[in-house]
Amino acid sequence: MSEHNYPSLKDIRSAHERIKHMIHKTPILTCSTIDRMAGCQVYFKCENFQKVGAFKARGAANAVLKLSAKNREKGVATHSSGNHAAALARAAAEAGIPAYIVMPSTAPEIKKNAVLEYGGIITLCAPTLASRESTLAEVVVRTGATFVPPFDDFNVIEGQATCALEMWDEKDDFDAIIAPVGGGGLLAGTSLTTHYMGPHASVYGGEPEGADDAYRSFTAKTRLPVLTPNSIADGLLTSLGKLNFEIIQDYVAGILTVSDSEIIAAMRLIYERMKIIVEPSCAVPLAALLKYPDQFQGKQVGIILSGGNVDLSKLPF
Amino acid sequence: MSEHNYPSLKDIRSAHERIKHMIHKTPILTCSTIDRMAGCQVYFKCENFQKVGAFKARGAANAVLKLSAKNREKGVATHSSGNHAAALARAAAEAGIPAYIVMPSTAPEIKKNAVLEYGGIITLCAPTLASRESTLAEVVVRTGATFVPPFDDFNVIEGQATCALEMWDEKDDFDAIIAPVGGGGLLAGTSLTTHYMGPHASVYGGEPEGADDAYRSFTAKTRLPVLTPNSIADGLLTSLGKLNFEIIQDYVAGILTVSDSEIIAAMRLIYERMKIIVEPSCAVPLAALLKYPDQFQGKQVGIILSGGNVDLSKLPF
Repeated sequence: MSEHNYPSLKDIRSAHERIKHMIHKTPILTCSTIDRMAGCQVYFKCENFQKVGAFKARGAANAVLKLSAKNREKGVATHSSGNHAAALARAAAEAGIPAYIVMPSTAPEIKKNAVLEYGGIITLCAPTLASRESTLAEVVVRTGATFVPPFDDFNVIEGQATCALEMWDEKDDFDAIIAPVGGGGLLAGTSLTTHYMGPHASVYGGEPEGADDAYRSFTAKTRLPVLTPNSIADGLLTSLGKLNFEIIQDYVAGILTVSDSEIIAAMRLIYERMKIIVEPSCAVPLAALLKYPDQFQGKQVGIILSGGNVDLSKLPF
Repeated sequence: MSEHNYPSLKDIRSAHERIKHMIHKTPILTCSTIDRMAGCQVYFKCENFQKVGAFKARGAANAVLKLSAKNREKGVATHSSGNHAAALARAAAEAGIPAYIVMPSTAPEIKKNAVLEYGGIITLCAPTLASRESTLAEVVVRTGATFVPPFDDFNVIEGQATCALEMWDEKDDFDAIIAPVGGGGLLAGTSLTTHYMGPHASVYGGEPEGADDAYRSFTAKTRLPVLTPNSIADGLLTSLGKLNFEIIQDYVAGILTVSDSEIIAAMRLIYERMKIIVEPSCAVPLAALLKYPDQFQGKQVGIILSGGNVDLSKLPF
């Protein structure tokens, strides 16, 4: 246990105060059809309605707003081809500072445009981790910008933890909360907040079978990377971060894995019954709930719908 | 003016009390990107989240709950291939009475299944208006059920009027409200409520160019049927009802028509920016707002998103 290093409840509340002018307090929705199917009461926290379309807006805003005055003017930098890049570009734009985003040359136009739209400065690199890291290092040296990692960072985790804080502030009797797990920023933050706000409740990670490093790491009690991730849940292909894994080991009850076909079925259910748009990663917790219903029967279950950035011309149904 | 026959504000409030255990109080959502594009503040009333996925749940529930005890046990009947059929079947099921639905043999499986799922009793007919009407007449004679029309009926209009009632109760300073117009149940109800709750505000109908009988009727001051309707907005292909046209003439400021490509662009904007699912008919008011922005500049504009029942495998983008 390294609890003493972790963000405290006071830290998480301060983060929420700090970022709340930059984020939406997203609604919690329910669906009686899904309740019947799952045999429990399900409360969907809609981060797909969040700024930039994902919970990532929280961590990025917190990291930017916690910069010292001296560091702030030099801006922030990251490498990402996903929601974190857009979230950081937006947070920086709101704070009036530059954001340097290293993106692989193969990143889809739509992702590049999202960053450009928020005023981010893109440096392209080769589509390898080595190139991403060396290019980022060069950008940081050249600009003096502060690197804001996508998940393996206490400021980012503290920001993501504000999502569950809003859930507990709105409803104080969850028996369980399920969040998707990729790098582990959201899951770690959710489990921290729940440890403080509802220690009787169990937090679970939902993970695609094709990128199940969190499941394997959790079982082996040692961090094992994902080698050849393959899943439709494109936001969950990364390996768990170090800090994230520590927190998850301390406060998460279990990792539930699901297949791509189960993810697609849950995604379709959300579209058809809830009339909201979620990205595939976002459907993983519901898929897990429907696959492992026994432990949730009759319970009050929170599910975090993490994001809604999906290419509508490529829906899997 | 035939105002004295119309449902009063007291009638509409009573309807809301009557049906509120059977419907959702749907949320009002906003989107800063759309506000910027439209040059005004837009408030989206999300009837796509309504029971059965459309505002039709309101009128059907009101009509069922207003039946006399004697008529109630014999059930209700209608002919419809759309949201009204499912809404009436559900309202009847909730009230524990039978619903007899006449549907054309060509109706999509998904529509038939929605009715069956709510326990509706389907009688198939040939896909002509004559066959629909004669089959319905036979069913009504045989069963003694009460015919609940989809829109041309004061009980139905009164029910649909509760949607705008919730809007005005939540926010009392709309300058304008735009609702889609097909048969005119929602538009008539919206204009009635607004006449009582915010008489300074203007109510507009949004209509597809390919089914513009409301626009032509409004201009000609006489009810002109739609002859060969053709639009992606499949919920708006019917001609205006008689009662609906009377109310619309009295209380609607104008009908704004839009092309299918404008409807599709607005629909895509709602999907991508608001992350919610709407059917094409539902995107018509936003398309109208973006096409005719001048009169709405700087205003507080309500838009009713009427429904979310769309075949996800056939999205127009």
